[in-house]
Amino acid sequence: MKIPPVKGTRDFYPPDMARRNWIIDGWKKVSVRNGFEEYDGPIFEYLKMFQIKSGDEIVEQLFSLKDRGGRDLAIRPEITPTLARMVNQQINSLPRPIKWFSVPRLCRAERPQRGRLREFFQWNIDIIGIDDVLADAEVIFTACDYLREVELTPEDIVVKISSREMLAALLLAIDIPESELEPLYTVLDKRSKLPAEAFEEMLAGQVSDKNKRDKIIKLMTVESIEQVGNCLQLGDKAKESVDELKRLFELLEVMGVADFCVFDIGIVRGLAYYTGIVFEIYDKATELRAIGGGGRYDDLLKQFGGPAIPATGFGIGDCVLAILLEEKGLLDKQLSSPQPDYFVAFTDKQFFPKAIELTAKLRTKGFAANFDYKSANLSKQLKQASAQNAKKCIIIGSEFENNELVIKDMTTGKQELVNINEFLGQFKS
Amino acid sequence: MKIPPVKGTRDFYPPDMARRNWIIDGWKKVSVRNGFEEYDGPIFEYLKMFQIKSGDEIVEQLFSLKDRGGRDLAIRPEITPTLARMVNQQINSLPRPIKWFSVPRLCRAERPQRGRLREFFQWNIDIIGIDDVLADAEVIFTACDYLREVELTPEDIVVKISSREMLAALLLAIDIPESELEPLYTVLDKRSKLPAEAFEEMLAGQVSDKNKRDKIIKLMTVESIEQVGNCLQLGDKAKESVDELKRLFELLEVMGVADFCVFDIGIVRGLAYYTGIVFEIYDKATELRAIGGGGRYDDLLKQFGGPAIPATGFGIGDCVLAILLEEKGLLDKQLSSPQPDYFVAFTDKQFFPKAIELTAKLRTKGFAANFDYKSANLSKQLKQASAQNAKKCIIIGSEFENNELVIKDMTTGKQELVNINEFLGQFKS
Repeated sequence: MKIPPVKGTRDFYPPDMARRNWIIDGWKKVSVRNGFEEYDGPIFEYLKMFQIKSGDEIVEQLFSLKDRGGRDLAIRPEITPTLARMVNQQINSLPRPIKWFSVPRLCRAERPQRGRLREFFQWNIDIIGIDDVLADAEVIFTACDYLREVELTPEDIVVKISSREMLAALLLAIDIPESELEPLYTVLDKRSKLPAEAFEEMLAGQVSDKNKRDKIIKLMTVESIEQVGNCLQLGDKAKESVDELKRLFELLEVMGVADFCVFDIGIVRGLAYYTGIVFEIYDKATELRAIGGGGRYDDLLKQFGGPAIPATGFGIGDCVLAILLEEKGLLDKQLSSPQPDYFVAFTDKQFFPKAIELTAKLRTKGFAANFDYKSANLSKQLKQASAQNAKKCIIIGSEFENNELVIKDMTTGKQELVNINEFLGQFKS
Repeated sequence: MKIPPVKGTRDFYPPDMARRNWIIDGWKKVSVRNGFEEYDGPIFEYLKMFQIKSGDEIVEQLFSLKDRGGRDLAIRPEITPTLARMVNQQINSLPRPIKWFSVPRLCRAERPQRGRLREFFQWNIDIIGIDDVLADAEVIFTACDYLREVELTPEDIVVKISSREMLAALLLAIDIPESELEPLYTVLDKRSKLPAEAFEEMLAGQVSDKNKRDKIIKLMTVESIEQVGNCLQLGDKAKESVDELKRLFELLEVMGVADFCVFDIGIVRGLAYYTGIVFEIYDKATELRAIGGGGRYDDLLKQFGGPAIPATGFGIGDCVLAILLEEKGLLDKQLSSPQPDYFVAFTDKQFFPKAIELTAKLRTKGFAANFDYKSANLSKQLKQASAQNAKKCIIIGSEFENNELVIKDMTTGKQELVNINEFLGQFKS
C-alpha cells in the first residue's frame, strides 16, 4: 500500500533537514545574542483561543480537531495567542521586560502556493512590558541582525515600516467611523497585492462616500513621514504617532540598520491585534510574498484575560526566506557538510571486532566515528572514508599485534603509526 | 477571556525549554557521532497511513482531522510510518545503509498520566538496509551512548532484550497457530504490567487450551538465553535466533555497553511490525514506564508499498526520561544557564544612545549583549548585569569624550579603561 504525503507539507530528507536546521539555528543564535529566551507551547490549543483576535483569514484556515471528550481543538496557525495565554498565566512572577523567542511549527489550511505551505516554521520574537518605541526598534534590529548574519544586504531586503496608530488618527480625521477601521485595515492591507481598479472596487465596498475614498487613496500615496503633515491637518494623536515614527527611524540609525528600513504608509498588517508601529519585510524586487512582519499589540494580553501590558514583536516564516536565500545563492554555500572525525578501517576481517570496539570507544569519547558495514577490502573502505569526507582514517592491520594503529590524515594523505593506548589516552572521556 | 491549555500538553516557559533543549541537543549530538543523519516529515499525514501497521493501541489514540477537501488526516502518533513512506519514495537513490535519526513531536489522544502526555518528543534512530544483528547492536549501543552521556549508569538503567523471531519459533513449537501469534504478542506484552492472575485471565481469553497456557507461562519464566533450550526442543528457526541473540550480546560486550544489557524473554513490544530482536529500556527500579524501546522490523517497508528491506531502530520519549533524570538529580546540574558576554551600562542618560549603539555593534559581531531598558542609575544597572550573570560590564561615562570605555570583569571585579576603537577593532565582523 503506497500512500503519498499530504499536499502542502514537506518531507525533510537529510539535505533538506540540514537547510532547515541552518535557518533555524541562525534564528536561535541571533535571538540569544539579542537577549531573548526561548519558549514554546503545545501544537494544539482550544479552537476558541484562535478565534479571539487572529483575523478572519487565519480563522478560516484552521485545522480543527476534537479530543476524545468532544472538545474543539485546533493546530496552532500562529503562536501569539499561546504567548498571550502563557504570559497571562505567570504575569505576577515573570520579571519584565519579557523578551522571548520561539520557532513554532505552524499549520494553516491554505491552498499551497510558492512560498506558502500548509505547514511551516516561523521565527517569533516579542518584547512584553515596554511602552516605548525603543522596544519596536530592538525588534526590528533583531530581524535585520539575522538578515545580515545570513549575508542578505539592503540591496536584497527592505523593511517597510508604518504606524497603525497614525493611520487610525488620519482615517478618523477624514471622518471614517472608529467601528469601520478594522474592516478597512483588511482592505488597505490588500492594496499592494491587487491591481489599482480591483483595490478601488474593494475599497468602494467598504467606504461608500466617494469623497472619503479619494482622500484615502491620496493618503496611501504619501511617500515620507514629512509628507504626512501636508496631506491632512494633523491632530494631537497623529502628531504623537508621527513623532514616534521619527524617533523609531533615529533609533534604527543609531543601531546601524537604517539602510534596511523605509517608511511605507501602505503597511497595515492583516491581523486585527496591531495597535502601533507595524512593519513588513520584503525582498527588494518584491517578487515574493512578505518574508515576515510584526508590530505593536498593546491590547492583546488584556483581550486574553490578562492585565493591559504593552507588547511588540514579529514573525518570520521559513518558506519565503528559503526561496530568497536560494535565489541569492546564499543557502548551500553557507551550509557545512557533515564530517566524521574518524573512519575506522581494517586490513583483514579478523580485525573487524577491533574496528567495532575502537569505533565505539571513539564515539563514547565524543568523536563522530564510522566503520564499514560491508567489511569490504581496505581500498574500498578508504574510498568510503573519502566519500564520507572523514577527517582521519584509522587502519587496523598487522601492527595491531604490537598495539599499534595507522592513522591517515585524509586531507594531507600523511600516515603515522601510533600506540593505541597512547592514542586513546590523550582524550579525556 | 481566559482560556486554559489543553490537558496533557505542556507549556515550555524558558526554564522548561532549556531542559527540553538540553535533552534534545544530547539526542542530536549522540546521533551524529554515531553516524546518523537527521530527517523529519510533516506533523500530519493521511489517516490511513497510521492504520496500516501501528498496532491497535496507537490507532485508537489518533488525533484525526480533515482538510478542506474532506480528506481524513491525523497528527502523527509515531514517525516510523513516515520513515517507511519517505524511504520508499527515494529507495533507488538513497545509498545504503540508510542511518537516519529524527526528533519528532508526536501526539496521542491518551488519558494523561505520569510520564505519558498527549504531546511529546521522541528520539528515533533507524538503520535500514543491514540484515545483520550488528545493526541491532549499533542501535542499542547508540541508546546506551546517550544514557552514559547524560551520566545515567547501569545502576540506574537496564536494556532488556529478546527476540520476536525466537518467541515465534517457541510458540509455534507448542502448537500456537501462526495466525494467533499477533494477538498473543499483545497479551504477552502486558505481562509485566499486570498482576499474575489478571495476566493469566487475559491469556485464557486468547489461548483456550490449558496445557498450552501452562507451557507459555513456564516459557515466560526463562531467565537466560541458555535456559531457552532446556525449556523446549529447539527447531532450526529457534536455534538460529538463539545464536543471533548470543552474537548480539557478544557485540554489545565488544562495544563496551554489555553492563547495561540483559536478556528478558518477557520483552515482546506492543507494535505489530517487529520481526526480530526487540528491546526496551527501563529504570532499574522499574517504577516508571519504559523509557523507550525498539527492534527489528524487516517487513515494514514492503507493507508500505516498497521492496523488502531489513530495518531496525528505536524510539525514546522525553517524558519518562526527564522524570528519571530529575529523580537522579542529573537534569538541572548539567544545564548551563544563559550568560550574556556584555552588559552595556552608562553613568548618565546623555550616554544612552551610545549604549544602544554599542550594544547593537557587539551583537552584530556575534556577542550576546544587553542594556537596561529603564535607564536606571549606574548602581542599579550593575545589579542588573549581575542578575543576568553577564561576563563583563561596559560602562560608558565621562571618559567617552576621550573615546574611552570602562570594562569591568564581573567575575574578578577588575576594571580597565580601553579605547573604544581598539576594543571594537579586535573583533572581526
